[in-house]
Parts: sequence; C-alpha cells; structure tokens
Amino acid sequence: MNTILNFSKPSLLLDKQRVLYNIQKMAEKARKSGVMFRPHFKTHQSAEIGEWFKQAGVKAITVSSVEMAAYFAAAGWQDITIAVPANVLEAKELDKLAKDNTIGILVDSLESVEFFSKKNKNKLNVWIKVDVGYGRAGIPWNQLQHILELLTVIQQNRNFSFMGILTHSGHTYQASSTENIHHIYAETVSRMQAVQNLILENGIKQCKISIGDTPSCSVENSFTGVDEIRPGNFVFYDLMMLHLGVCKAEDIAMGVVCPVIGKYPHRGETVVYGGGVHFSKEFIANQQGDKLFGIGVERAEKGFLKLREDIRLVSLSQEHGIVRLPDSELAKIKIGDQLVFFPVHACMTANLYDCYNSFDGEKVQRR
Amino acid sequence: MNTILNFSKPSLLLDKQRVLYNIQKMAEKARKSGVMFRPHFKTHQSAEIGEWFKQAGVKAITVSSVEMAAYFAAAGWQDITIAVPANVLEAKELDKLAKDNTIGILVDSLESVEFFSKKNKNKLNVWIKVDVGYGRAGIPWNQLQHILELLTVIQQNRNFSFMGILTHSGHTYQASSTENIHHIYAETVSRMQAVQNLILENGIKQCKISIGDTPSCSVENSFTGVDEIRPGNFVFYDLMMLHLGVCKAEDIAMGVVCPVIGKYPHRGETVVYGGGVHFSKEFIANQQGDKLFGIGVERAEKGFLKLREDIRLVSLSQEHGIVRLPDSELAKIKIGDQLVFFPVHACMTANLYDCYNSFDGEKVQRR
Repeated sequence: MNTILNFSKPSLLLDKQRVLYNIQKMAEKARKSGVMFRPHFKTHQSAEIGEWFKQAGVKAITVSSVEMAAYFAAAGWQDITIAVPANVLEAKELDKLAKDNTIGILVDSLESVEFFSKKNKNKLNVWIKVDVGYGRAGIPWNQLQHILELLTVIQQNRNFSFMGILTHSGHTYQASSTENIHHIYAETVSRMQAVQNLILENGIKQCKISIGDTPSCSVENSFTGVDEIRPGNFVFYDLMMLHLGVCKAEDIAMGVVCPVIGKYPHRGETVVYGGGVHFSKEFIANQQGDKLFGIGVERAEKGFLKLREDIRLVSLSQEHGIVRLPDSELAKIKIGDQLVFFPVHACMTANLYDCYNSFDGEKVQRR
Repeated sequence: MNTILNFSKPSLLLDKQRVLYNIQKMAEKARKSGVMFRPHFKTHQSAEIGEWFKQAGVKAITVSSVEMAAYFAAAGWQDITIAVPANVLEAKELDKLAKDNTIGILVDSLESVEFFSKKNKNKLNVWIKVDVGYGRAGIPWNQLQHILELLTVIQQNRNFSFMGILTHSGHTYQASSTENIHHIYAETVSRMQAVQNLILENGIKQCKISIGDTPSCSVENSFTGVDEIRPGNFVFYDLMMLHLGVCKAEDIAMGVVCPVIGKYPHRGETVVYGGGVHFSKEFIANQQGDKLFGIGVERAEKGFLKLREDIRLVSLSQEHGIVRLPDSELAKIKIGDQLVFFPVHACMTANLYDCYNSFDGEKVQRR
C-alpha cells in the first residue's frame, strides 16, 4: 500500500528520525564535554518537539522572546534563558514569569540593568552579553571597564543572580570554510576567557561562559573552557548549514511540500504553489550571483531520500515559486505533483507555519 | 494629553488616512479610465480593510490562494479572481466556493483546463494567463497556437465562462526608472492586444484584458485598451515602491514599531526588538551592495510624519534588527524607546502579523 502523504497546499514535512538523531548527537557531544546543553528553541517553537529534547535528557532551554518563554514555561520548562538584550517594555511579563520559573536575562547596558534593578520583584539570573566580534548585541569583549561597571550594579541587587558571560558568534554563518569556523570558535573562547579571568580577579566567585551558534557547535568535537552551549538550528539544519559544510544533506530534517501549478518547457521551469510566505525570502547566492531559495529532495514513505541538486527553486513571489530543472525531469512532472524542497534557513521557514507534518501523518503543533 | 500609542513588542502601525487616500486615488483613476478596478487583496488580507474598499465603490477583488478567496467570500465578497494558475489539488474547495460565488480562475496549460473540465460541477470564470515578459507563469504572448488550443477546450465546457486574458508584468518591480515602467506598460498592452485580436478573429465574442502590477497602475494616468486593473501593493506602498519612484514617502501607510533593546555608540548603532520574523528578509541594496531592510519614520498622534533616511535598519536576525544612525540621534535615544520603520515590501511584512494597529488605537484584524 502506498502511504505517501498528500498535501494540497504548501506544508512542512518533518523527518522525525533525523530530528531525533540531531538532538541525540548534540546532547551526547555536550555530555562528553561536560558542558550544559541549553538548546535554543526559537528554531522549532514546538512544545511537542520540546518533549523529544526532554527524552534526550535536556532540562534547560534558550528562547528569543518573552512570549516564547511564556509558551515553553506553560509546557513545563522551568529553566529558560531569554537570549536577547532584555526588553524593558516587557518588564511586567518578565517579572511574572520569574515568579515560578528560573529565568535568565541578558544585559549589555547600565540603563537596562538599573531599570530591572528597580522594577523586578522576583529573582532573575543575569548574564552579561559580550560581543566577541559578531557586532550585533553585547559589550565588546575588550571594553573591560564597561563590563566591570555593569557587574558592580548587578552585584548590588539581591534579586539578581550573576551567572556569567554569554555570547553568540553569529559571524560563523558567514564563514568561508569549516577551518574558518574553527578559528572563530577558538577566538571566541579565548576572548570570553579573557573577560572571565578579569571578572574572577575582581572577587566574583562564579562566572560561567555560554556560547551559542550552530556552526561552531556542529564542527567542534569538545568544548573545553566553556560551561554551556546554546545551538538551535541543528535540530533541523538547512541549506545554509549544508552550504557552510557543517552538516550533511542526510542531516536536514525539514522540507516544504509544494504542489506543481504550472509547466513551462520553453524555459526549463515549473511553477509551484509555494512562495515567500511559505519559505521566507532568505537565499544563498552562488559566485555568479544566482539566487537559490530551495533545493529539491526525494521522499519515501518514511523519510527523506536523495538531495536533488538539479531541481532548484530559483525565484519566489508571495505565493509562487519558480523551479528550474532538467528537461528530462520536467517531462516526468505533472500538474498537481508535489515537489519537496529543503529550505535555505529552517528557522525563518518554520516560523511561517502553524504545524509540522511528520512522515507518519502526525501533526506537530507550533506556537 | 499625549496619546501616542505604546507597543511593547514589534507591531504594525497603520495610517488609515493614507490607506483611504491610496484606495480613493486608484479607484478614481480606474473610474476615469472606464476600467474595472479589481484590487488584489493579498497585500492587506483584512476583511475590515476590505470594507474601506467597498466604501470606495469596489465590488470585485483579486486574491492569490483558494484559502484567501474563502476568507473574503465569508466576508461578503462575491466576485473573486484567484490570480495564480489554478491548483488542481484544491479543486474540491474551489468547486465549493464557485457554488455561491463568481469565481475566476487562471489557466495556462491543457493539463489543468482538462482537469477542471472534468472535475468542476459549478460555473467558473476562466482567464488564460499570458506571460508578456515577466517569465513567471502564463503562456508566452507569442505562442498563439498554444493559446488557441486552450481556448478550444475552454469553449467546449458549459461550466466555463471564458473571460479573457490576464497578465502580471512583475518585471516592473525591477525597472530602472519610471520611464522604463511606462515602456513595460506600453509593451504589455500592445502584446496583450495582439493576443486579444487573434482570439477575436477566431470568432470568440468577448476577450477582456486584465493587467495587474502596482508600478504600472501607479505611474500610468489612464488605461486605454485595458478592461481591468488588479494592483494590490498600492494600498500601503513601501520602500520598494518609493525606491522605484512610483510613490512618495507620504503615500506609505504602514510601519513597524520596534522597541530599542541595545545601544552601541562605538559602532553608531542601536539594536531593536524587530527581526526577520517581523519584517521578512526582503531588502533593497544600494550600488555599494549595502543592504537596507527598513527606514525610520517619525510619527505624531494621528499619523506618520517625516521619513528619516538617516535612521536605517541595516541587518536583521530572527528577532533583532541593527539600526545605524548618526551619533546626535543615538545620543537622544533611550533603551525602551519605540522606533518606527517603513518596511521594504509591505505584502511580505504584513503577512507576519495577526492585526494592524491604527493610530487611534483600533485593532484591524487580518486573516
């Protein structure tokens, strides 16, 4: 009996075995390294996928908004770090969450520390966000005086528990090679340790180091000198990670199913129902500047099969996508066929759907 | 009394007066030209904004999915064109909608026409989708034999009402100047008329011409030779349209409010809570290749004020945005301030929210 699932509209398809393998592998690596594994849940945003992490022994998580923290707290997670500089406009919601849960916040300005110092009634774990070179948020790792100033104010407040320093080396996403990722990782650890040493020299008893990006966590085998890792994307991986060389095609666990709605043999293209609102507009560009929004993948009854680099999503409108493919493939395709594509950036794509579909027909709900 | 609205999270802010002006202006232009105004509702996807169109005399609409058609049918719209090649996998839903409503579909292949010919029990208005040069969907305008073949099959089915030919000159979005848009528009009309003439010469009594893109509909003053226009984006406009020169900054009606969560004076930047999941990853690149994801705009109590080209959203992560601005501006900004940005592509941005907020505090729901 053929039990290939049918989808009449663009839908997320999840290879649960691959997800479980990715979780298991990262959890195991963290365990061997003796570091805390605090996965970032912004990628999947699903209480049910959260359960799969629990089964792998995970007890603490990372999220990127107060809303997301509230969702996972409601799903039973009690140790949550909100890994963006804390938003003072959500202080009330944060304080409420901190009443019954262990909530970690990130600070990188006196303004923000002083604000929460006055407003927060419940205990908060506080991390100083450090910028080791990515240039997004955080105090630059070499502005040591600035870091100590913040620390002084944090230490004065009995509701604050100073945890340590936290960084996200997001520049690994632009790395030119895995060699380059190793280099960024080593530099990150060394810069974080310089800050940690300074803090410990100033009489502070504990200063953990928390790092986060999927590229580093995927290519490194151990995490000496680090206390905690917070990767997120690895749960699904995607074409961006494949392109960077940090995962294999067989690790990518999420695809988008798209019905074929048009065939244009004179251009060697088909058009699918599946556009920017189903993939996001994230793309990879090759050296010729050609954009790529997805690559085809074959599926069997129980999971993904071979990557089809000859079936490429080359353009996206709001609801349509243009697929370029060899004439021999085009000749086989019928209007109404369902093509499956791996997305460029799984976090952004998953965000556009209410649920995932597993290969056995289960609907896995998202926030 | 200060009644400036406060938002603790990224939120859509709508200048209703500007929306009403944009609707009125386009409706008036269509009326003067004697063409049917069938606005594309994929941009706003809001039953309430739909009512504002009704008040401007609009009776028929365009959408880009069967789901969207069902939503607007439930909101009282009875004449709806679904302007993507009809999806055979949603034939059942389509047939159901066509029972009580006038539904227009697009076809560009024999496969699809033959499919609906067999499956559809209720009357459908059928448009042949023609490609006049954009290269997305549609039969190329010069494949006349192919068009006639489709027409023959359409004519044989009593449930089909052949309406005419429809195109979307989406290549105007890449135009180098408004001159270039005028050129594409003129070419579009002339190519569509060539197809129309052929069809009429073949004994068909009616063959309307429907065109659609916001750039053409904005820069042209009249639409001689055309029967119907289907612009959508003009309802809000955005930076892409401003960049193309088809609207003024004072026409842009939708912004995204973002709380400031970080300040980095050493880089001349702030970070806001507002990322790719709040704007989409659509960007404009300048000649130096610098990307721009949004531009600041001032707001008063009742509407948007001046565009602030010196306040630029230069990078987006999932939940954060990096804002580059002059030191003098940065010095004035406090953590917790709310910055407002016009988005690059309003359709993609609006799609990420459940509702709009009007300046008088009203929540305008979206699908």
